Amino acid sequence: MRFTSEQRLDDGVLEREFTLGEIPGTLWTPASAAPTPPSPLILMAHNNGLPKAQPRLVARARITAAYGYAVATIDAAGCGDRPRSAADEQARADLRRAMRAGEPVDEIFESLVGPLVGKAVPEWRTTLDALLALPEIGGPVGYSGWMALGVRLAVVEPRVVAAAFFAGGYVPRAQREEARQVTVPLLMLLQWDDEGNPRQRALDLFDAFGTKEKTLHANPGGHTGTPWFEVDDGNRFFGRHLK
Amino acid sequence: MRFTSEQRLDDGVLEREFTLGEIPGTLWTPASAAPTPPSPLILMAHNNGLPKAQPRLVARARITAAYGYAVATIDAAGCGDRPRSAADEQARADLRRAMRAGEPVDEIFESLVGPLVGKAVPEWRTTLDALLALPEIGGPVGYSGWMALGVRLAVVEPRVVAAAFFAGGYVPRAQREEARQVTVPLLMLLQWDDEGNPRQRALDLFDAFGTKEKTLHANPGGHTGTPWFEVDDGNRFFGRHLK
Repeated sequence: MRFTSEQRLDDGVLEREFTLGEIPGTLWTPASAAPTPPSPLILMAHNNGLPKAQPRLVARARITAAYGYAVATIDAAGCGDRPRSAADEQARADLRRAMRAGEPVDEIFESLVGPLVGKAVPEWRTTLDALLALPEIGGPVGYSGWMALGVRLAVVEPRVVAAAFFAGGYVPRAQREEARQVTVPLLMLLQWDDEGNPRQRALDLFDAFGTKEKTLHANPGGHTGTPWFEVDDGNRFFGRHLK
Repeated sequence: MRFTSEQRLDDGVLEREFTLGEIPGTLWTPASAAPTPPSPLILMAHNNGLPKAQPRLVARARITAAYGYAVATIDAAGCGDRPRSAADEQARADLRRAMRAGEPVDEIFESLVGPLVGKAVPEWRTTLDALLALPEIGGPVGYSGWMALGVRLAVVEPRVVAAAFFAGGYVPRAQREEARQVTVPLLMLLQWDDEGNPRQRALDLFDAFGTKEKTLHANPGGHTGTPWFEVDDGNRFFGRHLK
């Protein structure tokens, strides 16, 4: 893990860009992180189509770091600003066209996102190894954001002890099926009128999760309309499980 | 309003029983309420079948008072420990029998709860008048609990500026219809597996509320299984709107 830049933000949070092999990432650590105590870590993963520098993600990460967590994000293979295969570009174009035309998107979605999740999981786990080797980060580890990746990570990665998921209308078949295997405490955030995520599917997924401690928060509005108080609610959720 | 008893609780909260004509009530005020500043007020109404002394209601009220609110509850006409009419007793017996038998309960429910809401509203408003005349209570006013009563109060009582509703599977027709007239910020709490409150109806009601700022919190488990962290979430919701 190589840090390529750093800046100290107004609220004392340290923001550092890093690379880990081909993986570009950003790490935010709270003002009081070093030397003691090491901070719990939150992996914050965005919708695969958006870069890790997307302003809402960055704002969320900074608030969360100021709250006392180390927060990390990466652009995994094929996600964000990473190079895209010709097949992925084609699938994304097909997806946009089908959504505009109101046509079924399940198969296109499956062919695009299923493989992206498969490639993202080992990169996030490699990143987790590197982050937990830093003295200022102690764990335990929470996950926040992109639901399909989060479901897979919660199933295969025992170091993730709590997860906050967003949206959930379109989640690949494999992750819908393994939802019942998720046993960590869960906070699921749903935008009630999310044009790109059918509400009933998200509710069905909430119902399917195997964990005994799961909470759904729903708010009106579209995909990007989540009220900012949900960031605080998410931090308190992690506060109950990571501290 | 006549106070009939008072005790100072361990956390400094003052708990007072009162009567207002035929209405029996309890008022909890925070340790630091007198002389300044006057506290915002939360009207906490229980399911009509349970008394105001029900332990979960009392525990919730005490936590909320310790958080800095004046909290009041009453047994409205026909509710809690107040005398019940023979017709109401019969309807409650019919309701229990029908639920056990898995028969439709809508009409029984309507004939019981519709009138109870109608009689409760003026008593809660009279109580509100008396409470707001106390020097230690300043408003603004929030409402928490029994959804059918809360919907009606939120529509007719302009002093109620935020409301937290519970359950919502069985709400009388009149209140389901006026849900779209509710314009105050709303927190709706749903127990996902509530045997006595069909989930889909509660979701439909959440959808119907006219307010732009509404949040649904859902947790697994039956009617009385709401996790205690939801009391804190409710207090923070009121904190955004009453303080």
